[in-house]
Amino acid sequence: MPKQDRSRATRQRLLAAAVACLAERGWAGSTVSVVAERAGVSRGAAQHHFPTREDLFTAAVEYVAEERSDALRALFPQGATGDRRAVVTALVGLYTGPLFRAALHLWVAASNEEQLRPRVTELEARVGRESHRIAVELLGADESAPGVRETVQGLLDMARGLGLANLLTDDAGRRERVVAQWAGLLDDTLG
Amino acid sequence: MPKQDRSRATRQRLLAAAVACLAERGWAGSTVSVVAERAGVSRGAAQHHFPTREDLFTAAVEYVAEERSDALRALFPQGATGDRRAVVTALVGLYTGPLFRAALHLWVAASNEEQLRPRVTELEARVGRESHRIAVELLGADESAPGVRETVQGLLDMARGLGLANLLTDDAGRRERVVAQWAGLLDDTLG
Repeated sequence: MPKQDRSRATRQRLLAAAVACLAERGWAGSTVSVVAERAGVSRGAAQHHFPTREDLFTAAVEYVAEERSDALRALFPQGATGDRRAVVTALVGLYTGPLFRAALHLWVAASNEEQLRPRVTELEARVGRESHRIAVELLGADESAPGVRETVQGLLDMARGLGLANLLTDDAGRRERVVAQWAGLLDDTLG
Repeated sequence: MPKQDRSRATRQRLLAAAVACLAERGWAGSTVSVVAERAGVSRGAAQHHFPTREDLFTAAVEYVAEERSDALRALFPQGATGDRRAVVTALVGLYTGPLFRAALHLWVAASNEEQLRPRVTELEARVGRESHRIAVELLGADESAPGVRETVQGLLDMARGLGLANLLTDDAGRRERVVAQWAGLLDDTLG
């Protein structure tokens, strides 16, 4: 593998390890050494890529944001299907996996760490706008009709809340019933 | 003040300080010393009440759970009002204040701290059941009708998600519009 590619691969491994570390051990347990060990990279190599913990986690924030966008776009590569329950199930699914857990740890850490806060806030706004745009498209919602914008926003807030409810216990059964019911309400509202 | 009352007052001050500390500095920044200083209590006195950090924060979890239940019950002391938008606004309001922030920090900490997890999970389930019961009552919802239970659950999930959206930025304007829209949908559904 050419040197440049190896370097890029190492960087990716470190970012993926940083995200996994955040999701599993939280901000307090996520140091450069811990992440380097998890990635199978020497501490020196890790510090070559990311001299400080803030450098590493700022890049990890961006990585999580991009992965979440990719995951969103990959849900229905052919676009809207007309099956709103499938769309709501898929959107909510994005909020219950390891990317959401990592993002949650970042938000909570950023709320207390001034060095993380501006970057996380900015990226979160970007992912939020993109999630909204993709949800509108997949649901076939007409935002020129009054209330439709807020209906979709409320749905994404619900998805975020369902993700949070899944943090400490496996909430899959209850979640499925809530999704079925709200997908029906959405169908009635969006027409 | 009799000695027993003084001791109870000190304990309450420590618990309130622990919650404020968690909301502002997160788990990592919340040690017994930091909490004692904030409460204006000597470190020795704090350790008399709570020998370890886990003792302090396990009691703080319970304190937060009780405060959240009290806040719920105090929303409409006369019971259901028929004004569903006011009820939804009040319920959502519970998820945007310092008690929610403290609870959020606890959930995230508990997801990584085995010593906190069982107690937080148990108390969260208790608060969740109580929130649901009170929401049903205030909304005048008839849970014997199909889908009503899941509609109310989804509403509380949305409230939780709105609280999370408020963590890094002031989201009040958007939140108000989402609440207005979903209170309308709820009215149509619950009849």
